[in-house]
Amino acid sequence: MGFDTFLAQDFPQMDSIFRRNLINGLSGFKSVNLVGTISNTQERNLAIFSQIFHLGATPALMGMIVRPDSVDRHTLLNIMDIGWYTFNHIREDFYKQAHQTSARYNQSEFEACNLSPYFSAKNPAPYVEESHVRIGLKLEQRINLEINGTIMVIGSVQELMIVHGVVAEDGSLDLEKAGSITCSGLDAYHKTEKIGRLSYAKPGIEPKEI
Amino acid sequence: MGFDTFLAQDFPQMDSIFRRNLINGLSGFKSVNLVGTISNTQERNLAIFSQIFHLGATPALMGMIVRPDSVDRHTLLNIMDIGWYTFNHIREDFYKQAHQTSARYNQSEFEACNLSPYFSAKNPAPYVEESHVRIGLKLEQRINLEINGTIMVIGSVQELMIVHGVVAEDGSLDLEKAGSITCSGLDAYHKTEKIGRLSYAKPGIEPKEI
Repeated sequence: MGFDTFLAQDFPQMDSIFRRNLINGLSGFKSVNLVGTISNTQERNLAIFSQIFHLGATPALMGMIVRPDSVDRHTLLNIMDIGWYTFNHIREDFYKQAHQTSARYNQSEFEACNLSPYFSAKNPAPYVEESHVRIGLKLEQRINLEINGTIMVIGSVQELMIVHGVVAEDGSLDLEKAGSITCSGLDAYHKTEKIGRLSYAKPGIEPKEI
Repeated sequence: MGFDTFLAQDFPQMDSIFRRNLINGLSGFKSVNLVGTISNTQERNLAIFSQIFHLGATPALMGMIVRPDSVDRHTLLNIMDIGWYTFNHIREDFYKQAHQTSARYNQSEFEACNLSPYFSAKNPAPYVEESHVRIGLKLEQRINLEINGTIMVIGSVQELMIVHGVVAEDGSLDLEKAGSITCSGLDAYHKTEKIGRLSYAKPGIEPKEI
């Protein structure tokens, strides 16, 4: 079995599109979400992000990486101004609309991309009505990553709306029942099929499917 | 369509296992990797991590969240001591062994879990021979996240070994050809099926499959 090998010293000479595709693909399948925000002037913003990650369960915290020089900038400005935002899982039946939110619109992406805002009593930022897993967050911390000028936004989970039947008795989420999809690289979207759930790992005991 | 709703004020009263499962499932499908490290005394360590994310393509940087009080601690110690580590995508044919690395072993997880170390000329840390996408990283920065005591480790991509046929002409990775899988929550593993790749989004133009 042969391998293609690339070294850091090769990266600067690579075609820039080739390099972006290659490096963006390395982390594997990503946690892709639509991020909903609202501005001081009540404009509703929606943008697709794949650099989202679990940070801890107690307290319930999630992280997101934002690039300030991109179409992400409205999202960041709104989060800093209002202090609230939403993550919304993406389903196959609206993945093209979700992708399209990454275009540079001068109007609300909800209207431009034909997605419906949903407002709760608690969160001033809009959720996506079409999403079956909706997460409301409050800004806790902004960390400027000087190494490459990106920004890490840490939020606490304040509100969850998850369609009936997805949350199992033990609290785990059946994401396939929710229709949540994943992405890879800059532009590829994938649905999933469960291989198995495995029991808590202990030395000397083979993991069992649960 | 009905939704189950949870509020932050409910979290402290929840059963702790229910809460851990619920919150760990929120980020959706995750970038699961085996992280290979080596100690000062040449002990080879391998641990499964799902809090891994792309940080930027130029320079090529990846982030990882580590909990210092868990079985992750050897990984962190080794990275801090040696300055090098590896990410290795997980395939279905060894996902149970990969899961099993999360047990608290007093010996090398390579031996205990029957996975093979592979060493390159450049990187002192071991790769996983069974993996079809192997990433060599050099430590660039450690950021202590005081908000919950976790640690963000930022590394620069130094070396890539990707099995033939996975890297397309435009640099994008066909992760299904590599057999890379994804995970959700604390213990569920999933394979994927591509829905589509979409063209770069521009206002007023419908995204096309590419």
